[in-house]
Amino acid sequence: MKKIILDLDTGIDDALAIAYVLGSPDAELVGITGTYGNVLLEQGVRNSLALTELLGHPEVPVFAGLPHAMGRDGFAVSESTALIHGANGIGNVVIPDAERPVQDQPAVDFIIEAAHRYGDELAYVPTGAPTNLAAALRRDPSLKDRLHVVLMGGALTVPGNVNAWTEANIDQDPEAANEVFRSGVDATMVGLDVTHQTVLTRRALDEWRQIDTPAARAYVAMVGHYIGAYEKNAPYLGGCGLHDPLAAAVAIDPTLVGCLPINMKVECEGPTRGRTIGDERLINVAPKTTRVALTVDAPRFLREFMQRVGAALATAR
Amino acid sequence: MKKIILDLDTGIDDALAIAYVLGSPDAELVGITGTYGNVLLEQGVRNSLALTELLGHPEVPVFAGLPHAMGRDGFAVSESTALIHGANGIGNVVIPDAERPVQDQPAVDFIIEAAHRYGDELAYVPTGAPTNLAAALRRDPSLKDRLHVVLMGGALTVPGNVNAWTEANIDQDPEAANEVFRSGVDATMVGLDVTHQTVLTRRALDEWRQIDTPAARAYVAMVGHYIGAYEKNAPYLGGCGLHDPLAAAVAIDPTLVGCLPINMKVECEGPTRGRTIGDERLINVAPKTTRVALTVDAPRFLREFMQRVGAALATAR
Repeated sequence: MKKIILDLDTGIDDALAIAYVLGSPDAELVGITGTYGNVLLEQGVRNSLALTELLGHPEVPVFAGLPHAMGRDGFAVSESTALIHGANGIGNVVIPDAERPVQDQPAVDFIIEAAHRYGDELAYVPTGAPTNLAAALRRDPSLKDRLHVVLMGGALTVPGNVNAWTEANIDQDPEAANEVFRSGVDATMVGLDVTHQTVLTRRALDEWRQIDTPAARAYVAMVGHYIGAYEKNAPYLGGCGLHDPLAAAVAIDPTLVGCLPINMKVECEGPTRGRTIGDERLINVAPKTTRVALTVDAPRFLREFMQRVGAALATAR
Repeated sequence: MKKIILDLDTGIDDALAIAYVLGSPDAELVGITGTYGNVLLEQGVRNSLALTELLGHPEVPVFAGLPHAMGRDGFAVSESTALIHGANGIGNVVIPDAERPVQDQPAVDFIIEAAHRYGDELAYVPTGAPTNLAAALRRDPSLKDRLHVVLMGGALTVPGNVNAWTEANIDQDPEAANEVFRSGVDATMVGLDVTHQTVLTRRALDEWRQIDTPAARAYVAMVGHYIGAYEKNAPYLGGCGLHDPLAAAVAIDPTLVGCLPINMKVECEGPTRGRTIGDERLINVAPKTTRVALTVDAPRFLREFMQRVGAALATAR
């Protein structure tokens, strides 16, 4: 039983990652930590609380993380992001607020505590700005030898989605991402290299429509909105990329992807700021601390995705 | 017995590629076609003729190719390149001019003829600007289904060597490189991803000093110059990258590298002009026509390199 912490800027594909983990018989969602990116921190925390209750899992604790990059004064959602995820992050779909509140413990404290408590049983899955993780590594450098990270972010062998060289999560805080890669922490990077190979088409929505729970109805509407954005922005994909749920899936079952071991960096200066690329100075240095996913068994992942998310939507209250 | 055409801008590592192929018992160098990059076309052709004679192989025909990119009016060697390879391309080492002349047949005609004559027995290895190959594919589109290309150039998972995103050979003619990748021709890309993992140290020179032929003395001086340039430009590597000989080696024995199948493109516009990257629009399109080498059995390659180049230097006249 894999213990999972999702670090989310909840977001539509974040919502799918929550459902994926909750629908996985071999995983336990021990907590959700909040970050920013698709939405403001507060909105993401609100969505995480509400979605877990909608899915019948009010026992999952939700923690608020840092609201913006360490090197900046604040954060605002970009216009294009607000179009993709909707103003409320979940495709402008209205779901009830949660009954329970956010935890008092800050996200970074929870991450450090969980790393010490669960050790190798735990996978920590940041799918938004990697600011909380960088802060946790700064606060407790022993996490480098303790924490296993599966992050959604970056693009090594394909262009970015913010511009030709930058992926959205890394773009929120390149310095934090660079600190994470250079820390030496055990990391698997699930970037656009593979998440654009795992595409959900509109046919999936028909399958979920049969489930007919409040959660299923909300997810059909959310994901319909998300696919609509992809039809405008990246019509050649034929659907939406399953970014965050793929990262969650790889955290539970690493055999879904084929990885290149490599020492990574993030360019923080110059015209290609935000680019994730191998560190030329560490090209011949062992060990290689990051594994970048470059191939994926997309048919198998999509089967498991439909099964697991379907199970979560069906058993929702 | 693999038949090899080297397409060279001869250059110090080009000189090593010639020696590698001539010292390989399982390869036949059926011709050298000249391109530009490390040197002007004329200088490269002169060096190829002279080096093959120095190595005792005046039977290898040398053909002159195109002198500059199709979209440009001319070509000049950059200052930094002239420092790396020396003003004459071979580290300012003086070797006699060849007795034989360049062939009358243009390089592009020879490439097309050889592709038809030798079929799958042939590997065509461009290690400079890819202009001749793009011209051959334009002239005879059937080469797409006929020619096997192993090109030295590009950088997918590491920064470039011209700037953070561009490798020198691609930089000479991004449009030609883009045409090659998009043509669908069977291509293996041997870029900085792997050539910076195969590093020759100064100790190799001591081994060659024992050989004591005119060729060995010339190669020791050339490669000493080349390693000196690396000690200035990329001291973290601890020697010089074996770019062109690795491409030649992979053409003879593809099992030296591990490859990612991917549909590639070259960015021809914008700030990252010259960047080799996966084509996001063809990410889910089969077949993937390029294999990008990302891992290399460096110890095995270095052993074979020392053996084969050593053999070529020892049997030289």
